[in-house]
Amino acid sequence: MKRKVCVVVTARPSYARIRSALYALKERDDIELQIVLTASALLERYGRIENVIEADGFDISWRIQSIIEGESLLSSAKSTAIGLAETATAFYNLKPDVVVSIADRFETIATAIAAAYMNIPLAHIQGGEVTGSIDDRVRHAVTKLSDLHLVASKGAAKRVISMDEHPDSVFVTGCPSVDIAKSSMQSPDLPNDFFHRFGGVGSSFDVKKDYLVVMQHPVTTEYEDAYMQAEETLKAVAELDMPALWFWPNVDAGSDATSKAIRVYRENDKLPKVHFFRNVPPEDFIRILVNSDGIIGNSSVAIRECSFLGVPAVNIGSRQTARERGPNVIDVAHDASAIVKAVRTHLNHGKYPNDPLYGDGTAGVQIADILATTKLMLKHEHHA
Amino acid sequence: MKRKVCVVVTARPSYARIRSALYALKERDDIELQIVLTASALLERYGRIENVIEADGFDISWRIQSIIEGESLLSSAKSTAIGLAETATAFYNLKPDVVVSIADRFETIATAIAAAYMNIPLAHIQGGEVTGSIDDRVRHAVTKLSDLHLVASKGAAKRVISMDEHPDSVFVTGCPSVDIAKSSMQSPDLPNDFFHRFGGVGSSFDVKKDYLVVMQHPVTTEYEDAYMQAEETLKAVAELDMPALWFWPNVDAGSDATSKAIRVYRENDKLPKVHFFRNVPPEDFIRILVNSDGIIGNSSVAIRECSFLGVPAVNIGSRQTARERGPNVIDVAHDASAIVKAVRTHLNHGKYPNDPLYGDGTAGVQIADILATTKLMLKHEHHA
Amino acid sequence: MKRKVCVVVTARPSYARIRSALYALKERDDIELQIVLTASALLERYGRIENVIEADGFDISWRIQSIIEGESLLSSAKSTAIGLAETATAFYNLKPDVVVSIADRFETIATAIAAAYMNIPLAHIQGGEVTGSIDDRVRHAVTKLSDLHLVASKGAAKRVISMDEHPDSVFVTGCPSVDIAKSSMQSPDLPNDFFHRFGGVGSSFDVKKDYLVVMQHPVTTEYEDAYMQAEETLKAVAELDMPALWFWPNVDAGSDATSKAIRVYRENDKLPKVHFFRNVPPEDFIRILVNSDGIIGNSSVAIRECSFLGVPAVNIGSRQTARERGPNVIDVAHDASAIVKAVRTHLNHGKYPNDPLYGDGTAGVQIADILATTKLMLKHEHHA
Amino acid sequence: MKRKVCVVVTARPSYARIRSALYALKERDDIELQIVLTASALLERYGRIENVIEADGFDISWRIQSIIEGESLLSSAKSTAIGLAETATAFYNLKPDVVVSIADRFETIATAIAAAYMNIPLAHIQGGEVTGSIDDRVRHAVTKLSDLHLVASKGAAKRVISMDEHPDSVFVTGCPSVDIAKSSMQSPDLPNDFFHRFGGVGSSFDVKKDYLVVMQHPVTTEYEDAYMQAEETLKAVAELDMPALWFWPNVDAGSDATSKAIRVYRENDKLPKVHFFRNVPPEDFIRILVNSDGIIGNSSVAIRECSFLGVPAVNIGSRQTARERGPNVIDVAHDASAIVKAVRTHLNHGKYPNDPLYGDGTAGVQIADILATTKLMLKHEHHA
Repeated sequence: MKRKVCVVVTARPSYARIRSALYALKERDDIELQIVLTASALLERYGRIENVIEADGFDISWRIQSIIEGESLLSSAKSTAIGLAETATAFYNLKPDVVVSIADRFETIATAIAAAYMNIPLAHIQGGEVTGSIDDRVRHAVTKLSDLHLVASKGAAKRVISMDEHPDSVFVTGCPSVDIAKSSMQSPDLPNDFFHRFGGVGSSFDVKKDYLVVMQHPVTTEYEDAYMQAEETLKAVAELDMPALWFWPNVDAGSDATSKAIRVYRENDKLPKVHFFRNVPPEDFIRILVNSDGIIGNSSVAIRECSFLGVPAVNIGSRQTARERGPNVIDVAHDASAIVKAVRTHLNHGKYPNDPLYGDGTAGVQIADILATTKLMLKHEHHA
Repeated sequence: MKRKVCVVVTARPSYARIRSALYALKERDDIELQIVLTASALLERYGRIENVIEADGFDISWRIQSIIEGESLLSSAKSTAIGLAETATAFYNLKPDVVVSIADRFETIATAIAAAYMNIPLAHIQGGEVTGSIDDRVRHAVTKLSDLHLVASKGAAKRVISMDEHPDSVFVTGCPSVDIAKSSMQSPDLPNDFFHRFGGVGSSFDVKKDYLVVMQHPVTTEYEDAYMQAEETLKAVAELDMPALWFWPNVDAGSDATSKAIRVYRENDKLPKVHFFRNVPPEDFIRILVNSDGIIGNSSVAIRECSFLGVPAVNIGSRQTARERGPNVIDVAHDASAIVKAVRTHLNHGKYPNDPLYGDGTAGVQIADILATTKLMLKHEHHA
Repeated sequence: MKRKVCVVVTARPSYARIRSALYALKERDDIELQIVLTASALLERYGRIENVIEADGFDISWRIQSIIEGESLLSSAKSTAIGLAETATAFYNLKPDVVVSIADRFETIATAIAAAYMNIPLAHIQGGEVTGSIDDRVRHAVTKLSDLHLVASKGAAKRVISMDEHPDSVFVTGCPSVDIAKSSMQSPDLPNDFFHRFGGVGSSFDVKKDYLVVMQHPVTTEYEDAYMQAEETLKAVAELDMPALWFWPNVDAGSDATSKAIRVYRENDKLPKVHFFRNVPPEDFIRILVNSDGIIGNSSVAIRECSFLGVPAVNIGSRQTARERGPNVIDVAHDASAIVKAVRTHLNHGKYPNDPLYGDGTAGVQIADILATTKLMLKHEHHA
Repeated sequence: MKRKVCVVVTARPSYARIRSALYALKERDDIELQIVLTASALLERYGRIENVIEADGFDISWRIQSIIEGESLLSSAKSTAIGLAETATAFYNLKPDVVVSIADRFETIATAIAAAYMNIPLAHIQGGEVTGSIDDRVRHAVTKLSDLHLVASKGAAKRVISMDEHPDSVFVTGCPSVDIAKSSMQSPDLPNDFFHRFGGVGSSFDVKKDYLVVMQHPVTTEYEDAYMQAEETLKAVAELDMPALWFWPNVDAGSDATSKAIRVYRENDKLPKVHFFRNVPPEDFIRILVNSDGIIGNSSVAIRECSFLGVPAVNIGSRQTARERGPNVIDVAHDASAIVKAVRTHLNHGKYPNDPLYGDGTAGVQIADILATTKLMLKHEHHA
């Protein structure tokens, strides 16, 4: 009988963190793949990754709308609750043999609790990392609920084990997002109908020439500062006066402040060379990075994929503070002039060499193999 | 302005773990105490601790019915979800400055997530312990979500710190349940109207003479074995043929199997000397232990309070496997003859000396003092 | 393309009210049948109809645990909420063309709201009846939310139309429970291994001879009287001193009081000739009625199926006050001596003639035909 | 002991429908007023009425975030579910003697179910009206769940009774929104700092001179047409080329389409004389109407308050189809040229005479009096 692997995808960035593994799982004869979508994966304003997943040829087993609308932090907690109740129902009906939870977004703890409480072995992708932000709580709590740890780096493995997880349950696979980076580099050219194809709003320009990429998420615990933080980046981009592709933030307390700051800048015509996107397919996003002069913001992409790609990155603020990073990253505060200065340093330097810190591009196949063949057991059974 | 401390009580045993701290908090001028009740704290069939708390003179700020009925493990996950949604709403309205979560029952993770996601500093009572059972997952995950750790023993403190929590956030206070044990020993006599006062069903007998206490919870991940496990203990108690006071298990997947096994034994008149209780006030429970010849089952009371009290304990099965224990505990498998043999060893030995492993009886005052005066901050602020 | 018909079954008695229609739907080539189970349909202690439905050869599309445990009326409201959230999710994923809601139990309003709010045409089985109890609110509110009314009697049709529903949307089909009654009468003999086959607890006796059937539900708004009401019936049955088959009540606020009253009587050996059941298959239930000397309690079965079957019925209290009834029914208050007297009157009279008040036994086929072929539209489109 | 009256406010327009009654309730010595806020009442993007209510001097007893984010109709159903669960919890804790539910928005059925299932007498404001739209289902279903009907017009009373409600439970009080209209007319002048005070975006102009008011809600069941419908009104307003005050729609499936259409028009500078608001205090809204040349859209305000005020109204589309209306209303389809033509007819005619169709301006006092003094009973008790 096929082993049933249920992967719960909660957001656009999570999909990039699992996609190559999904392809590898789908190709195996010994696996029945189940995909459950929840949280912002179903929301238009966060790039509704549902459509991308279906276009990639995957069937969606179940969809759960779970995001509570609201400006306060309350909505994160309540959205998690709704996701938990219905993810549990989905597991009850789909009867998976193993559940996969990805990374550290607030709503992923719902996947972890549902699986752990229902005695379904739980595999966690990307445990053991540290960013120094609130996400650490979620990631480490999920680690403590998980039975199998499929981590991206040796440093991450070490940390998971130091948190008292059994070494036999920890596997260093690298990150699937690097797989996309690797394969996308084989055909790095951007499509000619770039702006037509990817939509969005704002200025169009020649993507064969110089441009920057911007991706800045609000930092949950600094809700009231979100507007100011967005503004500093906006000011820097305005001052740099280079063409830029700006990707909209994910759903989070504070994202409305970010959106508002962006809207104010746009309405005042201060960003004449910037184009705004909700979402593009993962490979195209990699191509956009490869062809860019660098990335600005606080996305983990700047640290993870870009270390493999050698793309210069200016990392702003505290969101990625403690994450392992390669030489391609310059860290700055939320300060427009510091951002501008760092970008200019990178522009003078150009591309960096490839760094396999987060994997060599085979993570997906490794993960699928482990999920298909490792003996599945609940964590306390290690001790028995 | 008074600091608002919100304590979430989810079950009968949790109340014993916090009661002396609640009294100490209530007496302080610098504290406004909020008590929120959820989960089995509101359910008749698990001893509705609500009534006890009110009789103790505390006001209940909010009540949340959250337990989903059902025989499967699904109900643990869904009940947690409902508790999470509404606990978050309660925090949104009550606006506490610090939230207190107690121990490791499945539903306590709801308290932890609500507080953590809403940026309310979270104090966790009884982190860092290890039982070797499924509860460990919940306890450690709550530790990773908590900002302040009020632990019962030095061993627990060490483990919390080894899981990468900041040492400044960890305080060894002992366990409040030991406070109750200490104060109850000052008037250890059982009331004359014992059976009349505490109700329950089954045989009455002279509690001045020999009797045993039984308290056995189903072990979540061994759901299907729950019936057999209950049966072995029932068989042992039947064979010992001593008067016994048996306390009903808490709500958990599997508790219905336990209840059923008990009912079958009762209906077949195999337990002529046993009396069954839902619940008694904590002090009386201590008095019952102090006057008994020993406790049988898998309750942490046998290890924690009874090490302080010196009451002989026969600990059955895996539920408390890895918990630190004193010399009063004999561990046995779910095997009627092993249980009988261990009880007889204890009966020959008699009482054990006091052991301060889980505190010296001042935990409540210490906890109240820390909650009232320590600088409250979110955990990632330690690193800043 | 096949029309997708989604039937939501929430409880044991609802299944009898739809079963013949499910068979008829399953046989049609133009229909894809979806069955969603919620509420007490999944609970062991209310006869887990799930197993019966699967044994009948139907596939379950989705299962939703939704009953909140608790002694108060609060649990009815919260259980409805959970059912609503997840039934809506089920419709979102299953994409039915028409939804079927059955009768008037509190949780059925969840089905109605989910369908109505999602613009899925809603067919209601058994609208327009009146019982004079709290159920009327639910039934009539569901009527106002429904697009298609498949009613059991002419009186019901008249009432639905008087509540301002469009006459074209109302169809008198009779009740599917009468279909079961009709077909079961073709082989009315009870199995020889009766008590072995149907389980339950209590006395066994010769079911070829005289016996009574008892089925009494707690009346929601009279929660505190539930115990007393159960007691009067218990007292009457004890006094009649006839063999009796007693069917356990459904989940409802108050059912615990009823259960408790029954248990007290049993434990005091006051019901030596009574056997208690959770559930039997619908046909066997009909056979049990046909072979009995009459039914006591407040079940609608006594009025509906028994008018067709001609089985004498003693209807107790207010639960069925205003329902149309045939000559087989004697109404009494919650009063043991009145119950005893009415039973004796029936015993003297014997069986009554068949009365087609609630259908001629072809309701299932008629309902399937309407669901498959009627033009589906939303109710306000009638007015356009 | 004071009678506890709990009013559940779910949205900005509902507050206008109850405000004068809240003032009257607050002034009574025999009433303890409880206000619970849910749904869009707490959301910034729908005018967060919470702040207005507090500024009006009322205490909020409990706040419940309940709106699920999402583009589909699913979110209406799920938001209702969340509102239901937590409104029930609020009633359980606040223990009201009577609950008040207002009008017909989708989420109000949650209030009705919670009260009805918990046996708390339920008073419904504004039952018995007919609009010919999807709201009718909700309104009539709430009527069937209610015990006390406080209706706005004689026509409404007649319809409630025709739906089989007991005549003794129906009171014609007029609509509290007319009370605001009446009192606001006593000082009809708009403030001099109009645009500064009320915020919003878009053009400013002299509100002492001619202007129109626009208020158009998406129609739930015509989701895909919402964009087109908004566009026709936008086109008409552009063509009329008069100053206009446009009020943003409430949360509803479809509101995003409306918002988008408005945003496209604004970004293309097609509405140079239009100012957009989220919300203004109710009295000021009346003053805005009184001083305007007329109102365009599909708000019930145009029919209800404006019949009393004599303000010309162009009612677009099906949303208010069947509502009783005075001579001040011209009905048109979603067609720009028809809208333009109707506005011009009104401009030629000018103001209309006062019409007491929806009350004489004393509804609030009447409602408070009934809630304070009428015998509270559950609806089926009328029949007993």
